[in-house]
Amino acid sequence: MNRPLIDGTLLLERIGELASIGILPSGGVTRDSFSGTFVAGRELLTKWFTDAGLEVSVDAAGNLLGRLAGAKQSPVLMIGSHLDTVTNGGALDGAYGILGGLSALGALKEAGVLLDHPVVLAAFVNEEGARGTPAMTGSRAIVGDLTPNDLEIRDNNGRTVADLITDIGGEPQYLAEAAWLPGSIAAYLELHVEQGPVLEQMKKTIGVVTAITGRALVDLVVTGKALHAGTTPMKGRSDALVAAARLVLAIESLGDNEVRVATTGTIHVEPASRNTIPGRVVLCSELRDDETRRILQAIRILEEFAQQLEESSGVSVAVTVVDVVGPCPTSSELQQCIAVAAIENDAPSMQLLSGAGHDAQSFHGYCPIGMLFVPSVGGVSHAPDEATDPEDLIRGATVLAQTLVLTDRHFSVPTSATSTR
Amino acid sequence: MNRPLIDGTLLLERIGELASIGILPSGGVTRDSFSGTFVAGRELLTKWFTDAGLEVSVDAAGNLLGRLAGAKQSPVLMIGSHLDTVTNGGALDGAYGILGGLSALGALKEAGVLLDHPVVLAAFVNEEGARGTPAMTGSRAIVGDLTPNDLEIRDNNGRTVADLITDIGGEPQYLAEAAWLPGSIAAYLELHVEQGPVLEQMKKTIGVVTAITGRALVDLVVTGKALHAGTTPMKGRSDALVAAARLVLAIESLGDNEVRVATTGTIHVEPASRNTIPGRVVLCSELRDDETRRILQAIRILEEFAQQLEESSGVSVAVTVVDVVGPCPTSSELQQCIAVAAIENDAPSMQLLSGAGHDAQSFHGYCPIGMLFVPSVGGVSHAPDEATDPEDLIRGATVLAQTLVLTDRHFSVPTSATSTR
Repeated sequence: MNRPLIDGTLLLERIGELASIGILPSGGVTRDSFSGTFVAGRELLTKWFTDAGLEVSVDAAGNLLGRLAGAKQSPVLMIGSHLDTVTNGGALDGAYGILGGLSALGALKEAGVLLDHPVVLAAFVNEEGARGTPAMTGSRAIVGDLTPNDLEIRDNNGRTVADLITDIGGEPQYLAEAAWLPGSIAAYLELHVEQGPVLEQMKKTIGVVTAITGRALVDLVVTGKALHAGTTPMKGRSDALVAAARLVLAIESLGDNEVRVATTGTIHVEPASRNTIPGRVVLCSELRDDETRRILQAIRILEEFAQQLEESSGVSVAVTVVDVVGPCPTSSELQQCIAVAAIENDAPSMQLLSGAGHDAQSFHGYCPIGMLFVPSVGGVSHAPDEATDPEDLIRGATVLAQTLVLTDRHFSVPTSATSTR
Repeated sequence: MNRPLIDGTLLLERIGELASIGILPSGGVTRDSFSGTFVAGRELLTKWFTDAGLEVSVDAAGNLLGRLAGAKQSPVLMIGSHLDTVTNGGALDGAYGILGGLSALGALKEAGVLLDHPVVLAAFVNEEGARGTPAMTGSRAIVGDLTPNDLEIRDNNGRTVADLITDIGGEPQYLAEAAWLPGSIAAYLELHVEQGPVLEQMKKTIGVVTAITGRALVDLVVTGKALHAGTTPMKGRSDALVAAARLVLAIESLGDNEVRVATTGTIHVEPASRNTIPGRVVLCSELRDDETRRILQAIRILEEFAQQLEESSGVSVAVTVVDVVGPCPTSSELQQCIAVAAIENDAPSMQLLSGAGHDAQSFHGYCPIGMLFVPSVGGVSHAPDEATDPEDLIRGATVLAQTLVLTDRHFSVPTSATSTR
C-alpha cells in the first residue's frame, strides 16, 4: 500500500485562511461558537470538505460533519476537533485538528487507500465554553450527553444554550437526532497542538496522549463592606479585594503543593471605584490533576483556608465547586497505533498527559479514544502567538493519516457488520 | 436678631425627592455628572432655588448657582456642594450640602435676617470624577483652575471632558466666564456628611474640619504571560494576577504602616478566561495622609516592592503616580465660626480631619474655606445604605445657617466695598 502523503502547503494555507475569520488587530483570533464568525468558518470548511469529496452535513447541535465512505458498511472512525476559539486565542487550537484531519483524508485519497471503515471528520461547536456556557457542547451532543437541562443553562448575557444553538442555525428541539447510537462510532481520534511546553522541551514531534487531566472548576465569592476609602480607618475594614488577594495566593500554592496546576483566571470587583473599599469580589479558578483524589483534597484545603479567612478578616467567602471532571484515560490500542504510525514516519514520539481538556473526553466510555499532539512553540496557547513549527504541523497530519490506516486494521470490521448510520 | 430655624420636614422630603433621580433597584443612587439624571437633578434644584427667591444661573461648566442678595455690594459668601454621586452611591454625599444650604438660606429669610454679603449657593458638577475623569470639575472651573488641557482629558469611553460638559448643556468654549475673579468670593463654606465613623463613635453632632486629607492616586499595570492554565506547569509561569495579589496586600500594609489609609479599589484582568493564566492586570489604588511627606515615602516603598516583585516573579510592573494632592488646611477663623455656631445651637462638636476630598479644596489658596460635618451612621458612604440621623441632618443645616450669620459678621464688609460680580 502507498504511504499517505500530506499536501503540506495546502494545510498551512488553509490554517492561515481559517484564522483570518475572527482575526483581531492583536493578531489573535476570536471565533466564539455562537457568533457570525463561527458560522463563516463553518461555511468555509463546508466548501473544503465538499471539495475533498466528503458527504457534508450540519447536525442539530451545529456541528459540521464530513463523511468519507468506507469499503464496508460498518461503524465509523470519527476524527476532528473544535472550530471555536477562546477570546483572543490562536490559529491552531481546534482548527489544526480539523484541517489536519482533512489533509489526512486527502492524503488517503491521493494514495488510493480505501479504508474498511467510513471516516467522519467533525468540526465541533463550543469546545471552549463561550460566554460562560458549559464546554464541549458539540461533542457531547454527538454522544447523546447533552440534556434538555443543559440547553436551559444561560450564558453571561442571560441567553440559553438553546438560543445560542439556534443563532448558528442549529435546531435544539431536534437535538436527539444529533446523538449517534452506541456502537456506531468504532473509535475517536483527535489531533491537537499540545498547548504546553513538554514536547518542545523533550525535542519530540508527536505526543501520544495517555490521559486527559482531571479538572475542578471552583468559584469564590467574597463579600465585605463597601465603604469610603478615604474616611474608613484601616482597622475594622472588611475589604473584599484584600481577602480575595489572599485567596488568589492560596490557590496558587495549591498548584505548587497539592495538584499539578491551580489557576485563578478571572476576578471581578464591585463597586469598582478607586475611592471605595471593594465590597464584593468574584473569582473563577480551576485545579487540574491526573488524580481525582488530589483534586478533592485541594478543594478541602481551599475551603478550610476560606473559613479561616472569614474568621480573621470579617469578610464572608462562598466557595462553589462548579464542576469536577475526573481524568480520562485514552485507549491503549489507539496509543499503540499512534506510536507505530510515528515510528513509520520517522517522528520522535513520547507519551504524555494532556493538561488541557478536549472534545475527545466526551467520547470517554462511549468508544475508544486516541489523541496525538504536536509541539507548541514556547508552550503558548489560548493567546495570539500560539504557534507550531510548520514541519511539525505537516508531520502531525501525516502521522494521523497513518494512524487511521493502522486503526482501520486494528478495529477490523466483521464481514457481517453494517453501518448504523 | 432672630435665630434662624430650619424647616426640617422640607429638608428631609427634598433629600428623598432628589435621591429619587438616579435611584437604582439596590436602593443606591447613580447620578453621574454627565448624564440625563444629573440634568434632571439640576432642573429640580432650579425649581427649588427659584421658589426660595434665589437668582438662578447655570454657568459654562454646568454648575447651578443661586444668589441671595446681600445688604451691601460686596464679595459673596459661597456655600454648596456637588450634585453628582458615585456609581451606586447614597442620598447624602453632596446632595445634603446643597439642600442643607438651601434650608439655611430659607431659615435666614424666615428669620428676617439680611446678611451684608450676598450668598451664592452652588451645586457643582462632577466632584466624584465620573468615568475616570479628574474630580471637582465644577468647583475648579469656579476658581479658574480648569485649563484647556483639562478639557481635552478623555473619560473611560474616549470622550473628552469638553464633550461631557457639552452633554449637560455647558459651554466649554466659554469656560473662562465660569471663573470668578480673585477677591470676588469672601469665603467658601461646605456642609457635608462625614462619610466615616469618627463623629458617631465620639457621639458628636458637628465636625469642625481642620484640614482635608492629602491623597495620591497610583495605577499599577502588571504584565505577565497569558498561557493555557491546564498545560503550563506552575514553575516558570508569569501570572499577572498572582503578582497583582501580592501588590494588593503590599498596598494594604502601607495603610497599616506608612499612611493613614491605602486602598485598591479596582482590578481589571485580561484575558479574563478561567482557563488562561492572566497576562495583564491593572490596579487603581490610592493613599491618603495629612502629610505629603508620608505619602511620598509610601509611594517609594511601593515602587521598591514592585521592583522586587519583577525580579522574583517574572512579571513586569509599571507604577504610575496619577496625581498627588497635598493636604488642605481650612481657615481657623471659619473653624471658629462653626464651633461657636454649634455651641449656640447646643450641638456637641469636635475638630476632625476630612478623610475624603471635597469641592472645598478647590478653593484652597483662593479664599478662606470652612467645612462642617454631620455624622454618618456606621461610617457608611459611597454605598446605598449611606445614612445620617434625621435630627443630625436638621441640626447640621441649622448650624450652617448660624455659621453664615457669624461669618458675615467676621468678614465684615468695608463701606466702600462693591461686588465684583
